[in-house]
Amino acid sequence: MEFFPAPLEKLVEQFARLPGIGGKTAQRLAFHVLSLPEEDAREFADAIVDAKRSVTCCPVCQNLTDGGVCAICASNKRDVSTVCVVAEARDVIAIERAREYNGLYHVLHGVLSPMNHVGPDDIRIRSLVERVGKGEIREVIMATNPDTEGEATAMYIARLLKPFDVKVTRLAYGIPVGGHLEFADDATLMRALEGRREI
Amino acid sequence: MEFFPAPLEKLVEQFARLPGIGGKTAQRLAFHVLSLPEEDAREFADAIVDAKRSVTCCPVCQNLTDGGVCAICASNKRDVSTVCVVAEARDVIAIERAREYNGLYHVLHGVLSPMNHVGPDDIRIRSLVERVGKGEIREVIMATNPDTEGEATAMYIARLLKPFDVKVTRLAYGIPVGGHLEFADDATLMRALEGRREI
Repeated sequence: MEFFPAPLEKLVEQFARLPGIGGKTAQRLAFHVLSLPEEDAREFADAIVDAKRSVTCCPVCQNLTDGGVCAICASNKRDVSTVCVVAEARDVIAIERAREYNGLYHVLHGVLSPMNHVGPDDIRIRSLVERVGKGEIREVIMATNPDTEGEATAMYIARLLKPFDVKVTRLAYGIPVGGHLEFADDATLMRALEGRREI
Repeated sequence: MEFFPAPLEKLVEQFARLPGIGGKTAQRLAFHVLSLPEEDAREFADAIVDAKRSVTCCPVCQNLTDGGVCAICASNKRDVSTVCVVAEARDVIAIERAREYNGLYHVLHGVLSPMNHVGPDDIRIRSLVERVGKGEIREVIMATNPDTEGEATAMYIARLLKPFDVKVTRLAYGIPVGGHLEFADDATLMRALEGRREI
């Protein structure tokens, strides 16, 4: 598209690289940036550089933090004997939002995926085993996604943790709250029946 | 959402301000930026600041340019006796893409809109009248959008240009190519009938 001035063209390309942003949307976003006051555009640019530079991983749980141990690990109100293992930092946020869980986390930053050449050394499994090895943890909740890779990762880690004196649990499967039975797939219904509880 | 480190939270907010980007998408984009190599993130940030700083309006046609007169006005291959008046710079790109038009443009940067307090002095009408006043232009094609405001703007400008010796035309209305008669609205069909041509 030779119709844009070069700097605008470049910005459109940058937006188009973002996941889920197509060419038309990238154009719309770039035009929006042009319409911003200069300081707002600079603020946006600074936010990108800042986030990238100052957000790191917590040395304990590998969750995202802006320096040192993360807020959850540093808190003295959390139950340090329980660790919830998730694939991505955004999963921590999802669980925190439910306001039900009060233990610690461990973020794997990925799942095992032989198809994509992701092996045990490519995600943060070793640091989890080391944490469990210290002996303070009583329960490890596997909260990876309920898909093939998440499942396999949970199984693999459960097997690794066998030698230690910890309970390894998995999130319950079932029908989502507010869901409709008629739209539930067979596998979910099967698991929901399997996991039925007395009321 | 107190769950994010502050710099990440800020970046999510920045993305969420973009048009058509909701909270969830903003989160996804922010996480994507975190996953980029540092130089890519910096390049993205620079593209924003750069585009905002170096893209200005062409002093002749008000189209976007990265310095001085725009490529279309500067070209000696364009028909300088025809000017196509559009509301926004992105409309220039749409028309250029059709590869049918070879004249110059005039970008209004908006349309008259009493509801939003946009009057004739808030869009680039005066510079258009001045251009026409110089006497080189033979035809002005009004190519604002076919909605109420675009229509009113076209009418207003046509009236302003009455005293000059120029032909003022309007884009043809009709059924879009590839469209279906059954889905065309009444107004469009009426215009399509009105504007019928011999074949």
